[in-house]
Order: sequence, then structure tokens, then C-alpha cells
Amino acid sequence: MKVGFIGLGIMGSRMAMNLLKGGHKLVIFNRTKEKAIDLIKAGAIWEDSAVAVAGQVDVLITMLENPAVVEKMAVGESGFIKAMKDKAIWIDCSTVNPSFSVMLSELATLRNVSFLDAPVSGSKMPAEKGELIFLVGGNVDDLEKVTPLLDLMGSKIIHVGDHGKGAAMKLMINQMLGQSMLAFSESLSLGMAMGLDKTQAMDVLLESAVSAPILKAFRARIEDEDYTPNFPLKHLQKDLQLFTDTAYELDKATPLTNTAKEVYAMAKQQGMADLDFAAVFKLLST
Amino acid sequence: MKVGFIGLGIMGSRMAMNLLKGGHKLVIFNRTKEKAIDLIKAGAIWEDSAVAVAGQVDVLITMLENPAVVEKMAVGESGFIKAMKDKAIWIDCSTVNPSFSVMLSELATLRNVSFLDAPVSGSKMPAEKGELIFLVGGNVDDLEKVTPLLDLMGSKIIHVGDHGKGAAMKLMINQMLGQSMLAFSESLSLGMAMGLDKTQAMDVLLESAVSAPILKAFRARIEDEDYTPNFPLKHLQKDLQLFTDTAYELDKATPLTNTAKEVYAMAKQQGMADLDFAAVFKLLST
Amino acid sequence: MKVGFIGLGIMGSRMAMNLLKGGHKLVIFNRTKEKAIDLIKAGAIWEDSAVAVAGQVDVLITMLENPAVVEKMAVGESGFIKAMKDKAIWIDCSTVNPSFSVMLSELATLRNVSFLDAPVSGSKMPAEKGELIFLVGGNVDDLEKVTPLLDLMGSKIIHVGDHGKGAAMKLMINQMLGQSMLAFSESLSLGMAMGLDKTQAMDVLLESAVSAPILKAFRARIEDEDYTPNFPLKHLQKDLQLFTDTAYELDKATPLTNTAKEVYAMAKQQGMADLDFAAVFKLLST
Amino acid sequence: MKVGFIGLGIMGSRMAMNLLKGGHKLVIFNRTKEKAIDLIKAGAIWEDSAVAVAGQVDVLITMLENPAVVEKMAVGESGFIKAMKDKAIWIDCSTVNPSFSVMLSELATLRNVSFLDAPVSGSKMPAEKGELIFLVGGNVDDLEKVTPLLDLMGSKIIHVGDHGKGAAMKLMINQMLGQSMLAFSESLSLGMAMGLDKTQAMDVLLESAVSAPILKAFRARIEDEDYTPNFPLKHLQKDLQLFTDTAYELDKATPLTNTAKEVYAMAKQQGMADLDFAAVFKLLST
Repeated sequence: MKVGFIGLGIMGSRMAMNLLKGGHKLVIFNRTKEKAIDLIKAGAIWEDSAVAVAGQVDVLITMLENPAVVEKMAVGESGFIKAMKDKAIWIDCSTVNPSFSVMLSELATLRNVSFLDAPVSGSKMPAEKGELIFLVGGNVDDLEKVTPLLDLMGSKIIHVGDHGKGAAMKLMINQMLGQSMLAFSESLSLGMAMGLDKTQAMDVLLESAVSAPILKAFRARIEDEDYTPNFPLKHLQKDLQLFTDTAYELDKATPLTNTAKEVYAMAKQQGMADLDFAAVFKLLST
Repeated sequence: MKVGFIGLGIMGSRMAMNLLKGGHKLVIFNRTKEKAIDLIKAGAIWEDSAVAVAGQVDVLITMLENPAVVEKMAVGESGFIKAMKDKAIWIDCSTVNPSFSVMLSELATLRNVSFLDAPVSGSKMPAEKGELIFLVGGNVDDLEKVTPLLDLMGSKIIHVGDHGKGAAMKLMINQMLGQSMLAFSESLSLGMAMGLDKTQAMDVLLESAVSAPILKAFRARIEDEDYTPNFPLKHLQKDLQLFTDTAYELDKATPLTNTAKEVYAMAKQQGMADLDFAAVFKLLST
Repeated sequence: MKVGFIGLGIMGSRMAMNLLKGGHKLVIFNRTKEKAIDLIKAGAIWEDSAVAVAGQVDVLITMLENPAVVEKMAVGESGFIKAMKDKAIWIDCSTVNPSFSVMLSELATLRNVSFLDAPVSGSKMPAEKGELIFLVGGNVDDLEKVTPLLDLMGSKIIHVGDHGKGAAMKLMINQMLGQSMLAFSESLSLGMAMGLDKTQAMDVLLESAVSAPILKAFRARIEDEDYTPNFPLKHLQKDLQLFTDTAYELDKATPLTNTAKEVYAMAKQQGMADLDFAAVFKLLST
Repeated sequence: MKVGFIGLGIMGSRMAMNLLKGGHKLVIFNRTKEKAIDLIKAGAIWEDSAVAVAGQVDVLITMLENPAVVEKMAVGESGFIKAMKDKAIWIDCSTVNPSFSVMLSELATLRNVSFLDAPVSGSKMPAEKGELIFLVGGNVDDLEKVTPLLDLMGSKIIHVGDHGKGAAMKLMINQMLGQSMLAFSESLSLGMAMGLDKTQAMDVLLESAVSAPILKAFRARIEDEDYTPNFPLKHLQKDLQLFTDTAYELDKATPLTNTAKEVYAMAKQQGMADLDFAAVFKLLST
């Protein structure tokens, strides 16, 4: 089984490396070749286009930045869907909106290609250690065929329903992530203004059952004012945009998420787009 | 040491009972006497006014609804502060805003009374089991004197600084609580609209590190649509109001918390004031 | 010069009638034929498809509900753009987002068709009286050719720039409209709660320089609680969605508009989608 | 009839000058004496305290910054209410919240002093020209007695009800003002990002019926980026805070106003507190 991997950013490059380590033959492509150097050294085969990768593999994995990038690469006359082999399986790990994911599954079906939306929960470190959580939408039989691959990259695979449901579940998780960080930022910022000791206030808040456990991972960043991007603010803001766009499509009001989205938008507008999303604390506390 | 307790609602009545069980002589008052029946049966001495209680005790504990109620009972010519014994200690467990708490401490000091702001983290069940967490602001010496009392009602005592700091820490925790519930409600509501299975979506979300652990305690409510009040929505909304008022006093912008406050306000306006605050899920998911 | 008109709702039917009255030969299509009866009686020629209309006219005018409807009718293999005559002019009066409008202009250019985005300011009555204001993006020469047509439907034509700029200006106006109504609703609702006389409060507020003049037109609705749709709430909410989507595309934070969008979304969710958008007053005042 | 005036800021000093010009004998006080120099030169009698002014006049006019300042000067053992002459009339022109104004009226009544809440609509120039609009709450007989005085300072007197109603109406107007500016700022900011010509976009928007007429007065400021304070941003933000606090007291949800309040709070937090409130455009457009 020949495997292709397109999209080798912070997450994709680590996921691909785990496939190589697992003994798989890997054909790869990325918009900027530099990010692929380590993988090439480790034995991956480079192709100069997404279409060239897609045309030769049995399983294609994509990990791209947003729906627009996926659409540009995959859809249309020169998109890679048309180039894929009959009965191949395409696993899209990008974080996209469900209706877009469903549209991709329809285009894949027309081409006799199986589609799985399989975005991941977890960031750089879990990606490196092969401890991601896959949230998968699509056909169970297709999922079973690629489970050995996913097992190399993740520690847990959750099948949440048919096409688009993996994307749906992912949006829910990132919405919670974005709001947790923002609520915490407002809380801590006011706590400091109220004269509480920053260290103790963080101790109490982070140990409390009202705080999402993941926030502990950001404590050092906030203490050190180190916003080196692990999960860039612009990506989190994009995910909130996808969440609210989906809410619009489905006639649901999500006032809190919309406000969260706009606070991150203000952070972006003030030059924090490429910092870690925890930088929103800086916006609110200064 | 004679102890007084004023404010015998859901929380106060359970806290007072634990003091009685601990062998303390307790003098009590509440605006509606019915809520005191069980305590009287258990040996508490009823007085017909807050002033009558305050005039005879060495330690006075209050657990009232909001700053306005505390002010009405405690402050002014006919308030109980003036009636308190010299060198008595007043422990206010009500959730109030820090600047109000500081003002109370100043009035107490003028009357040669020690003041501790000691709001609690935890609701009905922890109150009953004596497992509350006390967040205490004030003088350490005063706190040490009353620690045996607090130990009967709580499992943890955290001294967070001088006057008003207990109130400050409490506002931070309730702000996180209110936003966690609201973010979760928007997430789950959209998840269902996106076609996810409600049970599985809750499984995944509540097990994820992006969710505050306390949310698990509300799962059954949301599944059963049972909004019998444990923590009434209007009280949570009041706490968000105190948080944002304090932010205004201290020149801090808290856009997310303000939006959360208003979503709860809409729930209140639509008749959910006396339901549990988890009823906000109903507002957003219908 | 043969003219086609597609989209005969509240606005389109009135605009088309003014073209007929002006002596123009008109070929028409609408998804539901009933709405075209009066126009057919008045001499318009009915065709059974958008493509059939587009294939025979020199100028095509469209007035459709949203970008999705325009896309479905106009774009792709079976879309009407492909059917249009060489050197024809397409005037799209639908309220859409600028990037979508620019995309349409590009598709039209490929087909050697001239494109003008020409959304209108004004609702039912101005449409009937031929007093709309056209906000036009595109080539000035093209605009000059169709000015006699626009003059029959409107009292003012404003050329605001190249392709997509008409759409841009329209979004600005509808965003102001939506927020004016909402700010007024919150103001009046609180005014009544504060005990002011509703009639006098409206008198003072509507006469004040802080109120948009258009609000006077909604006074009777609010007094009579008559929310018969003139401009349906779901359309206004759609326009706010387009505005905020565009802000996302262009990296601009628009926190107030996003909140306004969500308040209308809550009104929609509570069954007010097809009422006039002034019904948002009802949501906030009950 | 001896008249006193306390609070001689941008507005108060101009109002007092018009009373002097009208031939009234005026006793004055201000926290910083420098602001009173011109009035003293023009014949006003300076006193070193508010109490000293209040003790000798038949009509006392106050124009202070916010409820806290009024409370500090007027209420309590050393407040000026206690010093006022029997049957004197106190006209408070400060912008305060209605419940506070009602409380002042009650304290005044206890002292046998008549109270009128009479905040003004209009800023520096109307104050100078005597063209303010008075929004008056209180007893009609009292209002009639002081109408000659108000006529010297304003061009219109609107009696809107009993105690606190003038304050209520004023909050409604300033809420509309704050939101108009903010909606306009978001609209214009996005308009420029969409590529519209700034001048033309302002032309179209400001001429449209969706824009509050008062916005025209801010055009030059925005074009010249001149935010010299006429109405300082912190004061507008304070008024929105009073509006939302009142909404909380009366169980009304005002989501849009709360968001507006927070956007101004962010502007304040970023150093714009003392600029004109139109500076919010700068926050959103950079």
C-alpha cells in the first residue's frame, strides 16, 4: 500500500515522520519544499505537485491550512481529486467546516474515491509522539482499512459518524479551546487588577474544576510572556470563523463564540496573527 | 465562643448545620423563618433580627444573596455592624464585589470588629458534606482564630490576601463557571444541529482537555432537561454583573464576560431566572 | 434593446413593472411563477428558465435572495452566464458580498459579457415608486449604456468604483440599518422599563440627532406591534453575515456588528425569521 | 433669587457664564479653582467649598462628572444637601443613573429641598451658545420656577416625568450616540478595507437615512485624525456603563450596548480614555 502525504507544516511533518518510522513508503508534497527536507532525508519521495502524489498512491493524507487551500489543491480541472487512482482512499486531516467536507466527499465519490474527514485533536507534541486523537467521519469499512496508518500517528481513533461529522466534532473542540483561553485571560487579567498575586491566582484557578485542564499547558507561556507559535492565533481565529459560519448555515445563534472570534480578530488586527493564540492574554491584560 | 449565623438559604442552612454537628452553640436569623426550622430542631437558637444575633456573638457568619442584601442588613444606623461586640470577628461568605467587601472591612474596623471575606467555591452537595473551599481575604491572625469553624464547613481554606481578595478570587471562579457552561451550550447545540449524536458528542467533549471538569456534573441535567435550581441562573448572572462592574472600576475590558452576562440576561428575561443556570443550554438549543 | 429580468420577489417585481411602464420589452423568469402573474398581464414575456431568458437579451437584470441563489442560477455548466449573448450586459442588483461579486465579474468577462454590481438602497415603497438608489460597481461605459433603464427604477445612481464596490457600499448601508434598529430597540426597551412614557420617549429619541432618520419609518410598526415583513429579518441577518464574512476575509475586527448579527440570529431561532426585522424590538422588550 | 453653580468643567463653565450674562448673581465652586477664573472675572462670587455655596442660595445647579463625584459632594454628614436652605431647589445636570437620581431626590425631600434631575443633550458649542436641550425629571411646579434660568442655558426644555426620568432619557440618548459612532466606525473601516474611496464612502453613508445626523459633525475629526476631546471617550464609556447597570437593575438584556461598552473599554485600556470618543474609529481601523 503506497501512501501519499500533502501538507507538511508543524503538524503534517510530524505525522508524516511517524508513518515513515512505521515502515511505510511515503510520497510527499508541500507548497514550500524546505519543510520537507527532514522527511526526504528520512526516505520520503518528493514530488513536485499534489497531482503527482495523488496519481500514484492508494491512500492520500492531507493536512492543509484551511478550506480555501484544500479547495485550490483538490477541486476543479487541475485539482488532485481528478488525478486519484480508482478505489483509493483520501483522508483529509485539515480542520475545515462540515459542509465543505461533505462537498469533498461527494466529489470523491464521483471519482470512485473513498473519503474520510479525520481532523485531529492535539498539537505539536502529541503529533510528534504519535498521540493525536483522530475524529473521523465517513464509512466504517474505509476507516478500518486505514486504521493501521492512523494508529502510527495517534493514540485514539473516534468514529463520530458519516461524512463531515469528524469536521463537526473538531470545530466543537476548537471552539471550546478558544473560549477557555479567552475566559481565562479575562479572569486572570482582572484578578491581577484586583490585586491578587498572579502565581497564587493561577494556582487556584487552574486547580479548580471550572478550568479546562488544557489551560495548565499554557501557564508557563503566560508567566514568561512567551508567545512563540505552537498553535498560531490566526488558525484558532479561522476555526472560530468556520464554527460561526456553520452556525449561520444551520440557523443557530452562538453569541459567545462570535464575540470570542472578534476578540481574537482584534488581536490579529493588532499584529498578533502569527503568535500563539495564548497571546490574547497580552491583548486583554495590558 | 458563641457563633452567629445569618442567611440560611440552600448554602447557609447546610453550613450552619455542620457547625451544630461540630458541637457549636449557634444563634441564627434568616429573613424567612421557615428555612430555619431544621436548624432550630437541631438546637440552634432563633433570634428575630440580625441585630439581635450580632449583639451576642463572638463570631458572626453571614451567607447572603448579594451586596444589596448585605448592605441593607449590616450598614447604617440600624445595621448589625453597630450592634456587634468589641473584638468580635465577622466572616462574610456571601459572593460580593471586592470594593464592597473592602468597604465592609473599613466599617468593621471603625467598630473594632475584625472582618474576613470568605466566599466559598462549591454548591449544595459540598456544603452539605462540609467540603466547601473557602477563599479568604483578611488578616491571617483573624483567620487562624476561626479556622476550626471553617474546617467544619469546608475541606480547604485558601488565604488569598488582604480584605477583598477572597471576594476577588470568587468572582474569577464564577466567571469561569458561567463561561464554561455557555461555551459548552453553544458547542453542543451546534453539534446537534450538525447531526452529531448527542450522547457521543457529550462523551467526546466532556472527556477532552478543553472542557472544565465541572461540566460533567451537568450532563444529566442537560440530558434530562431537568433545570431544578441548584445554582439559580439569576445568581450566576448577578456574579457576572459584579465581575464586569469590578472590571469597569479597574479600567479593564472584558468583552467575552460581558457577552456571557447578556446571554444569561436574555435567559432571565425569558423566564429562566429561577431555573438552574444550566438552563442557558435550553435557550441556545431550541 | 431587449431586457431580461430574473428574480421577482417584493423588490424585483416592482422594479420590473417600472421597466414595463417605461415602455421596455421585458423577458422574465422567477422560481415561483405566481409572483410573475401581474407582470405577465402587463405584457412581460415569461420563460421557463433563467437560461432561456439570458440567451435572448441584451441586458439582463437579476434581483435574487443571496449569493447561494445567484451562484446556483448563474454559475457552472448549466448556469445562465454561459448562455448569455456576446457583449450583453448583466446588472446584478442582489445584495451579495464583494468578493463574490468580483468572482461573477470575472466569469462574465471570460464570456465577453459586461458585469455591473448594482444593489439598491430602499425597500418596497421606493421600489414601487421608482425611487431606489443604485450603488454601482463596474465600468463607467457599461453603466452609461444602462443608465436609462436604471433611471426608470431609481431616483439616484451612484457609481462607487470598479467591480464589487457597489456590493461593498450596500453592505455598509445595511450594517448601519441593522445596528440602528437594534440600538433603538435596546434604548426604547430600557426606556420603558425605566418608566418613561413610550410615546414621549419615541418623540424625543426620534427627533434627536443621535437617531437615524429611517427609524421614523418603523415607529408605527413598533407602536402597533405589526411586523408584517417589508424587509424580512432573515434577509437583514444574512446581510450582517456577509458583512462579517467580508471583514474576516480582510482581517478586520467588527465586534459590534458580530453581536448585532447574533441578536438577530436569536430572533431568527425564536421564530421571527420571516417577520420584519423590526421584530427584534419584540425580542428585546418582552 | 440667589443662584449657586458647582462643577465648572467644559460644560458647566459655559452654562454658568450664560447665567451671568443673563444678569444673575452667581455663587460658584469647583474642585480646581483655575477653571473658575473667567467666571470670577465676569462677576461670579467664589466660595471655597460646595457646602458654602449650597448654604446661601435659593437655586443650586450642579454639573459633575459622574454619580460617585455627586455622592461624595452632596451626600452624608459633610455633604451639601444638609447645608441647603429650606425650600431651596437643587437642579442636578450631571449625567447619572436614574436610581441614583431618585435616591438624591429622596434625600433632598427629607431636607425640604426640591430636586430636579436635568441632564442636557448637547456638547461644548451648544453649551456656549445657550442652545442645550434640558431633559427634566421632577415636579412641574419646581420646573416652572426655574424655567427662566434654564432658558438662559438652553433652547429647549422637555419635561419627561417625575424624579429620575430626566436621567433615564439622557442615558437613552447617549447610548444611541455611542452606538452610532461605533457602528459607523466599523462600517467605514471595512469600507476602506474593501477598497472604497474614503471620501465618497463617507459622502454616501452620511447622506443616507441609516446614519444619525450627528455623525456629520465628526467627519472632519475622522478625516484629520484629530481626537482633541470634546466629549472624552471615558465619559461616553461611563454613560454606557450606567445604561447597562440600569438594565441589570431592571432585568433587561442589552447585548449590543454591552458590546459597545466593551469596545470603548478596550479603547480606554489602550490609552484613548482622554481623547474624543470618536477615537474609537482609530482603534477599529488600524
